[in-house]
Amino acid sequence: MTADWNELKNQAVKWMDEAGKMLKESLSHHLQVDKKSDPNDLVTEMDYKVERFLNEKINDTYPGHLVLGEEETGTNIESTDGVLWIIDPIDGTTNFVHQKFNFAISVAVVENGVGKVGVIYNVMHDEWYTAVEGEGAYLNESQLPEVTPVDLPEAVIGLNGRWLAREKRRDERSLHRMVRKSRSVRSYGSAAIELAYVASGRLDSYMSFSLSPWDYAAGLVLLKEVGVTATDFKGEPPSYLQSSTVLVARPGLHNQLLHYVHDHEGFQE
Amino acid sequence: MTADWNELKNQAVKWMDEAGKMLKESLSHHLQVDKKSDPNDLVTEMDYKVERFLNEKINDTYPGHLVLGEEETGTNIESTDGVLWIIDPIDGTTNFVHQKFNFAISVAVVENGVGKVGVIYNVMHDEWYTAVEGEGAYLNESQLPEVTPVDLPEAVIGLNGRWLAREKRRDERSLHRMVRKSRSVRSYGSAAIELAYVASGRLDSYMSFSLSPWDYAAGLVLLKEVGVTATDFKGEPPSYLQSSTVLVARPGLHNQLLHYVHDHEGFQE
Repeated sequence: MTADWNELKNQAVKWMDEAGKMLKESLSHHLQVDKKSDPNDLVTEMDYKVERFLNEKINDTYPGHLVLGEEETGTNIESTDGVLWIIDPIDGTTNFVHQKFNFAISVAVVENGVGKVGVIYNVMHDEWYTAVEGEGAYLNESQLPEVTPVDLPEAVIGLNGRWLAREKRRDERSLHRMVRKSRSVRSYGSAAIELAYVASGRLDSYMSFSLSPWDYAAGLVLLKEVGVTATDFKGEPPSYLQSSTVLVARPGLHNQLLHYVHDHEGFQE
Repeated sequence: MTADWNELKNQAVKWMDEAGKMLKESLSHHLQVDKKSDPNDLVTEMDYKVERFLNEKINDTYPGHLVLGEEETGTNIESTDGVLWIIDPIDGTTNFVHQKFNFAISVAVVENGVGKVGVIYNVMHDEWYTAVEGEGAYLNESQLPEVTPVDLPEAVIGLNGRWLAREKRRDERSLHRMVRKSRSVRSYGSAAIELAYVASGRLDSYMSFSLSPWDYAAGLVLLKEVGVTATDFKGEPPSYLQSSTVLVARPGLHNQLLHYVHDHEGFQE
């Protein structure tokens, strides 16, 4: 029997909404009461708290499903057989601590290695990016249009400056040429949000030298629905179980960018 | 007779609110009606339209004041004597076209070379950053606290990747070292918004190799009120009349960063 993916999506949204309230509450508490606590402790505490909350909800409601989380859940999972939830309780932890915005909760449901449900919740901006395989992707209530082709000189690329400033200098030249040929680059500090921005057309591409499945699993489901190509730097699909380089881009642009990043695959961090 | 700077600030806010409505309206029009028009035409049209609107309001209300704008206003101004308004009708034009968010209207009032009023309006996020000299800086209704010192390893820096990918490679090494020593970098594509983020603590620093007075004039007024140091790459105050490198940072951090960017002053673009 196939699961009702829309029901799972609605459950995910409901639980993520509760989790979002916990995060908002923790920020106001931190601001008002506990200014001197170590910000890294706060993150760790809230990461674990939200991951455990989501994990419990999933286990209670869908006891046959597996859960892979950023912090501690499902570290022994070695296969994508069956139904697998992949969750990131706070994507963009540095933003959570430093900026108190531009962080997200990211939840994906994968069946036998195929992404079925993707939800990215930009908590402080109240933006919900949701998708069920084959039924389109949405930003809040609006369906996102299929993306159109674009060339590098007209493209705005999501790329963190740290990847341009590494010590392996010889290998960055192609990346630097790529940046110079693009219209511009942006960096927001949350892979989930940046993938959602590509899905919604705010960015034309996003790339990273090192992400984990919980950073991009939900994004992959969204991007497929709007026609964005998503691979690693070799052009292969990113793994749902292991960390990976990630290159997502609108049609036409993806092939152009692959040329610039292909040689960086061996330099994954 | 000294001007009532609070009255000027309130006038600026009122006019910028009207201008913001024009920009929002132009985006919805563009989305619904005119999908095939050249996005650069749209920007130019709205840039001019908003600048003329603000210029007319200022001229009508304060006939003795001068106005310097990004597009066409006050190009013959060669002195900061008297009262000078410095306006950017759309800061972040690429974002305006590509993202339909993260752009700002920026308005400053300078008297005899001293910043008196600064207002930055992040239109789509409805965030108003306002300051009157000596009276503190505000984000909407909340006064922004004085910033505290921070060291580079704990700092999040606003820096566009294009500055890390230039062809003058020898001179970028210090900049690359700086990025590697920082906690992280971000880039939002609007200098006015990024300066406002430093004022509000969302970024610890922001730097650019080439900005114009209308990009940073309002930001300078805000930053001074919260204790952020703002200079060019030589450590001198940025000019209100000519383009400049810009380095703003929290106490302690500014001196550390000046060391990394000092040699880049000659490479201004």
